[in-house]
Amino acid sequence: MKLNGVEIEDTFAEAFDIYVARVLITAYDYGLAEVAATEATGFGTSIIMCPAEAGIEGKAKPEETPDGRPGVYIQICHPSKKTLEQQLIARIGQCILTAPTARAFDALPDAEERFDTGNKLRYFGDGFEKQLEIGDRKVWAIPIMEGDFIVENDFGVVQGVAGGNFFIMGENQPAALAAARAAVDAISSVKHVITPFPGGIVASGSKVGANKYKFLKATTNERFAPSLKGQVESDVPEGVNAIYEIVINGLSVEAVSEAMRAGIMAAVKVPGIVKITAGNYGGKLGRHAIYLKDLL
Amino acid sequence: MKLNGVEIEDTFAEAFDIYVARVLITAYDYGLAEVAATEATGFGTSIIMCPAEAGIEGKAKPEETPDGRPGVYIQICHPSKKTLEQQLIARIGQCILTAPTARAFDALPDAEERFDTGNKLRYFGDGFEKQLEIGDRKVWAIPIMEGDFIVENDFGVVQGVAGGNFFIMGENQPAALAAARAAVDAISSVKHVITPFPGGIVASGSKVGANKYKFLKATTNERFAPSLKGQVESDVPEGVNAIYEIVINGLSVEAVSEAMRAGIMAAVKVPGIVKITAGNYGGKLGRHAIYLKDLL
Amino acid sequence: MKLNGVEIEDTFAEAFDIYVARVLITAYDYGLAEVAATEATGFGTSIIMCPAEAGIEGKAKPEETPDGRPGVYIQICHPSKKTLEQQLIARIGQCILTAPTARAFDALPDAEERFDTGNKLRYFGDGFEKQLEIGDRKVWAIPIMEGDFIVENDFGVVQGVAGGNFFIMGENQPAALAAARAAVDAISSVKHVITPFPGGIVASGSKVGANKYKFLKATTNERFAPSLKGQVESDVPEGVNAIYEIVINGLSVEAVSEAMRAGIMAAVKVPGIVKITAGNYGGKLGRHAIYLKDLL
Amino acid sequence: MKLNGVEIEDTFAEAFDIYVARVLITAYDYGLAEVAATEATGFGTSIIMCPAEAGIEGKAKPEETPDGRPGVYIQICHPSKKTLEQQLIARIGQCILTAPTARAFDALPDAEERFDTGNKLRYFGDGFEKQLEIGDRKVWAIPIMEGDFIVENDFGVVQGVAGGNFFIMGENQPAALAAARAAVDAISSVKHVITPFPGGIVASGSKVGANKYKFLKATTNERFAPSLKGQVESDVPEGVNAIYEIVINGLSVEAVSEAMRAGIMAAVKVPGIVKITAGNYGGKLGRHAIYLKDLL
Repeated sequence: MKLNGVEIEDTFAEAFDIYVARVLITAYDYGLAEVAATEATGFGTSIIMCPAEAGIEGKAKPEETPDGRPGVYIQICHPSKKTLEQQLIARIGQCILTAPTARAFDALPDAEERFDTGNKLRYFGDGFEKQLEIGDRKVWAIPIMEGDFIVENDFGVVQGVAGGNFFIMGENQPAALAAARAAVDAISSVKHVITPFPGGIVASGSKVGANKYKFLKATTNERFAPSLKGQVESDVPEGVNAIYEIVINGLSVEAVSEAMRAGIMAAVKVPGIVKITAGNYGGKLGRHAIYLKDLL
Repeated sequence: MKLNGVEIEDTFAEAFDIYVARVLITAYDYGLAEVAATEATGFGTSIIMCPAEAGIEGKAKPEETPDGRPGVYIQICHPSKKTLEQQLIARIGQCILTAPTARAFDALPDAEERFDTGNKLRYFGDGFEKQLEIGDRKVWAIPIMEGDFIVENDFGVVQGVAGGNFFIMGENQPAALAAARAAVDAISSVKHVITPFPGGIVASGSKVGANKYKFLKATTNERFAPSLKGQVESDVPEGVNAIYEIVINGLSVEAVSEAMRAGIMAAVKVPGIVKITAGNYGGKLGRHAIYLKDLL
Repeated sequence: MKLNGVEIEDTFAEAFDIYVARVLITAYDYGLAEVAATEATGFGTSIIMCPAEAGIEGKAKPEETPDGRPGVYIQICHPSKKTLEQQLIARIGQCILTAPTARAFDALPDAEERFDTGNKLRYFGDGFEKQLEIGDRKVWAIPIMEGDFIVENDFGVVQGVAGGNFFIMGENQPAALAAARAAVDAISSVKHVITPFPGGIVASGSKVGANKYKFLKATTNERFAPSLKGQVESDVPEGVNAIYEIVINGLSVEAVSEAMRAGIMAAVKVPGIVKITAGNYGGKLGRHAIYLKDLL
Repeated sequence: MKLNGVEIEDTFAEAFDIYVARVLITAYDYGLAEVAATEATGFGTSIIMCPAEAGIEGKAKPEETPDGRPGVYIQICHPSKKTLEQQLIARIGQCILTAPTARAFDALPDAEERFDTGNKLRYFGDGFEKQLEIGDRKVWAIPIMEGDFIVENDFGVVQGVAGGNFFIMGENQPAALAAARAAVDAISSVKHVITPFPGGIVASGSKVGANKYKFLKATTNERFAPSLKGQVESDVPEGVNAIYEIVINGLSVEAVSEAMRAGIMAAVKVPGIVKITAGNYGGKLGRHAIYLKDLL
């Protein structure tokens, strides 16, 4: 199958279950909401060595926030529910509570399972905290130096999807990168998903285990390394000199699929793209197989 | 003492020793270097609940980088040398190696004590990595999807300073915040320092321990909470309704002092600022006392 | 009337008829579309001394653009249809044609009255230009250094509205400014409007004519100058030390009214705001009177 | 000659004399200074159809500004001294006076020839303006809605240089563009120069006159149009599919030359670049010939 002259490989992305919390950060303006969101979602690309996977989902218009201020949605993800709860406390407590004019509201109000993160953070108020209602939300007002920090009493947690992905193969590095940026921008309009890597883009792929250094759980995937073509059995097609991966987490397979679709459609519009493919482990590791041909 | 009509309290900031690593990230352009730097320094405001304190120091012009590309300097800080080493591996490995076109060079080449972080990360190459020299730097080229990731073999670690600080007290929240932003911008020109909180600004202050919830190590400092004036013994001056703190880490007391000076000079130029002070524990906790009157 | 504790004066904004062209700029990604849009709408605050009034309306998602790429909408406005046509040619020809990866599509496809701007610009192709269709749009492909510049054959022009406005009166300058920023962010979600001044905000107001320098058509409105309180007959309320105006142009009175509503709702949420009012000339100059009380 | 494997053609850039004014805009912080600067330098790529050529030169640290606030330098250029004076009045009066917290200082204090732009703008104060000194600068304080607008009494004008340039030829469009961005970033560190086109980059080249449409003064330079290769006598080398030009204006030939050097050094570091050349008219039109081989 070809799209805009670019080959779309007949394969699938293999995605995993993961627990997701979703926070709505509001502030005076979008810029200040993003300051808090950027700090709160940093050091959050992959749970291989990061304490969580996290990212900014998109803007919340004033009319869709409980306090009528501009906001942004973020997602924080982890396969362990217990670690996710710890991360939610730490990232709200250290990166949103401390951020100028920011407030933290739950953005999964319909989730049945809930962390009482706000109720735990309110002890920081040392007895001076007060319970309030904003809209129909039960929140805590904790007196701090800038005024009162507002945090919702509890936050929903749902089982979402991690590791939705596709690979962009380009004639050269700048072409593959420009297409990756276009894909991330297109995905930024899709609801309920994040692209947790730096700028939404992954420069490195990994395989499970190692050939040489057996003590490692994950090493570079040499079959996808353009500089090793000719040296190893390679999956890098002729004419391809650089590959970027877009990794997508989200609330549902549907949202992640829609993000993959939007991203691929955008990527193939950039000149110099040779092929789109996706990463999987033959269906052995993840519960969700998202076929590229079904998306397009 | 008054500066531009603003009272400067005769007090001191109490700062602590901390271990600091400093990384120079280069990329195609400043924007891409910042993408990597932002991810690598996120979730890094305070070691109370973050795994490290981290921030972006500033730009590195092409002529000052080993590979002649635009770059940015970041600092990663922790009081435990061992934890710092783990953080350096994790943040370079997960947030710079994965970032498009980014490379990681040591930015403390004169430090005697060194972590062999690059030598550890190179095993990700699974035997395909190669040792090279760029300028006089010993680096590893690790084949990945975008091409080769370049990381320096080892990174210096020095004893630096954490917790340099000053407080900006304003008539209202927007005034204190505008002054805090001006201060952070002025500090961004000072070499060898970072302001690790969100946007460089701290909205909340804490005291050691608690009055009511004895199980907590740190709780809100009610004496600096404007919304509790009248309810508690308060250090919030008359006419003050919001306070922001600027926290500064850096390579030396001199650098941190210069940042405090530059930040205070900028803050007092914004209308609506009543007073500048600084935070200390009576000299009981930190080794460094930086007196405001000595700076100005 | 009070909103969030802020007085809303019972008055109206007086707005004018103006001709508007609306261009959809697409590019590889939003950042590059904004590069073109920023240059094309610069030096465009007020026709008092600028050649046009212009601004960025907002993003166009890939699925709403003719070529499926990310885009931004801009508006260019002038009371003279002839000048507007010249401005459209100059701003597309000098600021979009020259911008990397940018294309210019008409964003008023239903307008009956049309400028054949693309048909004029295509002569730059010196005979090498070709007519194409993208979607159902008739466009020209003009060979240039980066490849082919795509411009639609003709652009709609409609009679829109200029000078919708409201004034934000604050305790001090940073408070009024923070509220103005919040207002501009809220307005950025409203379709079909622009805020043409720098950052969407006006720091200076003017009156028609002059008291002292009779040779001038417009001079400062001393009744709204906080630093002249006590010296002149003043409309600056007690407790107010700074005022910003938000000026809104748009395709219809309805769109401009909605933007005023969204902006005022956001502004009153920022601490330190005393009063909201609006500017008019007693109904003598503009055809449209937009009453604040009708909006809220 | 080859640089990093990229052919550098043995040719020269032909540059012209132009009059230049240079304004230092200060504000609360860099972001607000850039808001004013962006509006004031917009619609300013080329005097072919723009009223001036204009751009942002770079940041001014607080310690180098008369009022100790963060700032940015801009340049406004025109071959006609009279038009330049009009443009300076219009762009300061409409885009800096109206911008939040912005002030306009002269940034050519040693220039002998001067425009009394501030002295003209002060009449906007309608008799309420006051003369002050800030540092050793004679300025006017004009009462406006946000407070007092500060503008220096007079602004230097010097004969500078326009049209310094080089061309980046890439395997494909994204590669040429990535190199152009790298070049613009490297040039941003060079003092006394601007890159007036959108994002500093030119996507289209022109020749004087026309082959077919004789009524036009400038048309596309078909010899540099990759999509016409094979159809016309072409200067597009084999393997090149996209070209971007970087155009540089500045205060002196030395500054423009240094910018060209820095830009070329950065461009050749991006993968996929085939050749660097420069544009000239055989020395017939401009007074300055800047040879690439002399720069490197």
